[in-house]
Amino acid sequence: MKKFKNSTHSFVHESLKGLAEVHADILRVHFDPTYVIRRDSAQGRVAVISGGGSGHEPLDVGYVGHGMLAAACPGEIFTSCTPDQILAAAQSAEQGAGCLFIVKNYRGDLLNFETALDMLDFECATVVVDDDASVDSSPHSVGRRGAAGTMIVQKIVGAAAAAGASLSECKAVGNRINAKTASVGVSFQGCMDPITGAPTFEIGADEIEFGVGLHGEPGRQRIPMLAVDALATRMLDTILADLKPQLGQRVLLCINGFGATPLVELYVLFNAAAKQLKERGLIVQRSLVGNHATSLDTPGGSITVSLFDDELSSLWSAPVHTAALRW
Amino acid sequence: MKKFKNSTHSFVHESLKGLAEVHADILRVHFDPTYVIRRDSAQGRVAVISGGGSGHEPLDVGYVGHGMLAAACPGEIFTSCTPDQILAAAQSAEQGAGCLFIVKNYRGDLLNFETALDMLDFECATVVVDDDASVDSSPHSVGRRGAAGTMIVQKIVGAAAAAGASLSECKAVGNRINAKTASVGVSFQGCMDPITGAPTFEIGADEIEFGVGLHGEPGRQRIPMLAVDALATRMLDTILADLKPQLGQRVLLCINGFGATPLVELYVLFNAAAKQLKERGLIVQRSLVGNHATSLDTPGGSITVSLFDDELSSLWSAPVHTAALRW
Repeated sequence: MKKFKNSTHSFVHESLKGLAEVHADILRVHFDPTYVIRRDSAQGRVAVISGGGSGHEPLDVGYVGHGMLAAACPGEIFTSCTPDQILAAAQSAEQGAGCLFIVKNYRGDLLNFETALDMLDFECATVVVDDDASVDSSPHSVGRRGAAGTMIVQKIVGAAAAAGASLSECKAVGNRINAKTASVGVSFQGCMDPITGAPTFEIGADEIEFGVGLHGEPGRQRIPMLAVDALATRMLDTILADLKPQLGQRVLLCINGFGATPLVELYVLFNAAAKQLKERGLIVQRSLVGNHATSLDTPGGSITVSLFDDELSSLWSAPVHTAALRW
Repeated sequence: MKKFKNSTHSFVHESLKGLAEVHADILRVHFDPTYVIRRDSAQGRVAVISGGGSGHEPLDVGYVGHGMLAAACPGEIFTSCTPDQILAAAQSAEQGAGCLFIVKNYRGDLLNFETALDMLDFECATVVVDDDASVDSSPHSVGRRGAAGTMIVQKIVGAAAAAGASLSECKAVGNRINAKTASVGVSFQGCMDPITGAPTFEIGADEIEFGVGLHGEPGRQRIPMLAVDALATRMLDTILADLKPQLGQRVLLCINGFGATPLVELYVLFNAAAKQLKERGLIVQRSLVGNHATSLDTPGGSITVSLFDDELSSLWSAPVHTAALRW
């Protein structure tokens, strides 16, 4: 297996040490239990906290900082973070206004965040992200999975918290943006697990997995590879059937790479998707292209659409200063 | 071949259309001939212009904007930009203080920039980037190749231009940072050319190409895969033998992914390299980790070290507002 790695045991630990050193102006990393926390705490603001398996970077650790997450709890590769991580992160990050947990809809993540929440003696609430419109349930989730929409929910809720919204207001806007967000991903082959050295799945030379999950979970079906215009049509059909936007609706269009697809291709996918959204009478008001919620070195990517209004546009555009998102 | 693509003919064109729409606040794309130019011109400032084959994104087009490039000329995949592109970009970007061309040391790029320069009737100068310390010459270059150090030279010179430095001052600081910068890359396999569908090279399951170029050109030698600590030692041995820093020297440490290596691994490589630089008596004053100068979907990455002083640190930290780099 060819990976930048010393040992399986220390892989995530060494990566977080690197992150801590590069972004010492933004965040600190605490070990045993492991969590990443903002360097400058925001007194009196709701602490927005997320977490889950590693291997999706920059999600979630790269989004810790002003205007987004107060803390993040990275698990081992593709493995939920544990309740003791969440507990320690929440206790350290809470600033008198409670904690809001943003949790991707996977069974392990939900269970561990719930366990931690029950043990905390200050106000906490949870927003569950289930933006993946491609499947109704999957091997690791009851109901739809969380996908690249997670970082959109984190950005919107983080901006609301920074602006002084209360815990219940943060939860409400989190649920609102989650309901207005849908994603569909396609992958061209499985990723190489740096722990096991095995590919997550095998697929034919001209086939793609349509509706794949962030861990290579099966999607809707295997289909032959299509030209990007035809592929974007099929992905947007699924997304828009879910969101049911009205003509003239403003949207955020986010193109997310899964880790091994070059940026030059992601802009080609953006171009195809943006063109079609306009043809369908929608207005692309905000956009984002890059590797934001990855699946290790998976080739492929996802389209996410969020229906925006004045409040959501303004929260999206509010200042953010994290390792992976800054404006 | 599984790629987000309609046709070979339109691939780069569609990607640039996507780039133009996503970053309409920063840049415009002109077609026939093709160049990317800052939206807000900087009157009376030197126009810093770069260019070369596509497939290295965000290099160069993602670095157009305030504090970095005035314009960039993207060629077809791994193919030099043409003199007419450079000519048109320079004529459009020049703001009364001349143009500085930052050119990676490849025969085609050098020739085409020289041809354009001879046809321009305002003051122009060239800085040639040859930071790749792994080989003395290669199939596409006489002398050392340009590599990830290119974006460091672009950032430093762009900051000097934004601060009002003259053409000769910009050229001098460009040559100075180039001389103080060295890179070494390793790749784990060839990339898939989106035009031909063929891998750029074949390599054994446990072998890596040590000292690879940005287009998959052969490096120093094929070696067995090493643990990241041992690999970083070998890469830094090559870099520091070239730079010959003194004890206590401040450096910029840049870890660059070639396009298909997950961020979680790049931070592991950073951690290994930073630790060793400190053990060798150097001070890591600035750092950067990410996919900055890629080679399509090549797995692997490079280490770049630049020797910094007060002037270079300050130019590095000066504000920048581009698609791919912003602070």
